[in-house]
Amino acid sequence: MADLKVTFLKVYSVLKKELLEDPAFEWTDDSRQWVERLQAYFLVLDDIMDNSHTRRGQPCWFRVPKVGLIAANDGVLLRNHIPRILRKHFRDKAYYVDLLDLFNEVEFQTASGQMIDLITTIEGEKDLSKYTLSLHRRIVQYKTAYYSFYLSVACALVMSGEKLDNHIDVKNILVDMGIYFQVQDDYLDCFGAPETIGKIGTDIEDFKCSWLVVKALEHSNEEQKKVLYENYGKPDPANVTKVKALYNELNLQVVFEEYESKSYEKLITSIEAHPSKAVQAVLKSFLVKEE
Amino acid sequence: MADLKVTFLKVYSVLKKELLEDPAFEWTDDSRQWVERLQAYFLVLDDIMDNSHTRRGQPCWFRVPKVGLIAANDGVLLRNHIPRILRKHFRDKAYYVDLLDLFNEVEFQTASGQMIDLITTIEGEKDLSKYTLSLHRRIVQYKTAYYSFYLSVACALVMSGEKLDNHIDVKNILVDMGIYFQVQDDYLDCFGAPETIGKIGTDIEDFKCSWLVVKALEHSNEEQKKVLYENYGKPDPANVTKVKALYNELNLQVVFEEYESKSYEKLITSIEAHPSKAVQAVLKSFLVKEE
Ligand SMILES: [Mg+2]
Ligand SMILES: [Mg+2]
Ligand SMILES: [Mg+2]
Ligand SMILES: [Mg+2]
Ligand SMILES: [Mg+2]
Ligand SMILES: [Mg+2]
Repeated sequence: MADLKVTFLKVYSVLKKELLEDPAFEWTDDSRQWVERLQAYFLVLDDIMDNSHTRRGQPCWFRVPKVGLIAANDGVLLRNHIPRILRKHFRDKAYYVDLLDLFNEVEFQTASGQMIDLITTIEGEKDLSKYTLSLHRRIVQYKTAYYSFYLSVACALVMSGEKLDNHIDVKNILVDMGIYFQVQDDYLDCFGAPETIGKIGTDIEDFKCSWLVVKALEHSNEEQKKVLYENYGKPDPANVTKVKALYNELNLQVVFEEYESKSYEKLITSIEAHPSKAVQAVLKSFLVKEE
Repeated sequence: MADLKVTFLKVYSVLKKELLEDPAFEWTDDSRQWVERLQAYFLVLDDIMDNSHTRRGQPCWFRVPKVGLIAANDGVLLRNHIPRILRKHFRDKAYYVDLLDLFNEVEFQTASGQMIDLITTIEGEKDLSKYTLSLHRRIVQYKTAYYSFYLSVACALVMSGEKLDNHIDVKNILVDMGIYFQVQDDYLDCFGAPETIGKIGTDIEDFKCSWLVVKALEHSNEEQKKVLYENYGKPDPANVTKVKALYNELNLQVVFEEYESKSYEKLITSIEAHPSKAVQAVLKSFLVKEE
């Protein structure tokens, strides 16, 4: 572990710096920013498939006049730039092929997660009885956690000469972290102010397998369950209002706050159990709250 | 070249055979079939972006009920299987990383070609005066020729230990071949029977930079040009009829037949100039007419 401790943070910052110098990308000094750049491809396609309206307070790319469904190809072009950047900077390194494998694997995991997410919300296939914590976890793990949490750290590990098979613990922590952040995202979709979250949440209308509906089903009696089955996933604001009223009745805000602080403590404990202080620092940097 | 001559055809058939054994794919013994499998990703997305109705006589994937725009993710999943197959079969080979680079490069070329194609047909950007033989060539070269003609042969070259930089002549022939086939495709879109080509052509309605409209512009006097400018790219069948009448007036069928036989001869000549008989055989196999 001595090696890793020394090289990990160094490599992590070298990776960031080299990518920063690529004129095709505008990196900022914020480590979340470069993760977000890699997300662009997935988000552009996701907004098309979810028929979304806004993304970070702006119209989704495919909603921009003269773009439309060409956005699908623009997404692919964004994706094609990842191996081009990697090739430009790292073609001669021993780990180059492992980086390519990593990106390919993570892309496949993400697309698989998207698939599970999408097929649960198809008209005619909607079934609330399938919405459990384990389905929620599977969707989030695949469609979000690997690319937005695991990928950047795995890159740094690969580039510091580590075999990813030796770092399953790091992977597990990052997956748990992805789930922790997605639960917050699910919560804010309903309870966050649109000005703060930069969009109008539509998880209820869209029949999303949100952490909130899973918890609501878990805490509901038969009568309350009936309210959910009758109102979840309908576009009419009257239905949405009934679902939100039930969420309040079930005190989901309190359930969330308890989940949030418990998960945070658990994550900190797992991170501090890691033998490398450098790895601990990288993992903790992900936990810093936004704003 | 002695090496190449021996290994080329062997590797080509090994590649096909190994991929044939992958249960994820249903390969037939037809070499065009495996090329088509790799095309699936591009075609699924292309049909969405072109708002097409049918593909090979069947509804486009995104038009199938319960699929819709989820098709975009299905396309990505098809694409994700390419590196998975390559990894499964070739991870330990010295050429593995070159195969990955090749696929990434060709995907980027294809998406770039799609982009040029798509931005010429955006509402508000349509401009017939841009439709020249050189634009037609650029679009076809990037969006079609690399992935459907160059890629499979380049794979075989890489796997036989060749450096692609030493085979620019093969690449050029394959690009020319791609253009030759696309001109036929453009021709059939207008003059082919829907039962034969498996779809109803809409290049005229879609304002496509087809070889036919390029040739029509080339052979038109001012009055005929006016007919094109007034009727090309409009959905109304009356406009389409006028364009087709002009194509007939300009004898484009004859112009096409001349182009076709001249191009065929030129391709055969370039192929026969290649020093390797094995490479000649592979290249000629692409020229066999369908049906
Ligand atoms: Mg979405
Ligand atoms: Mg989505
Ligand atoms: Mg959300
Ligand atoms: Mg098309
Ligand atoms: Mg197209
Ligand atoms: Mg066509």
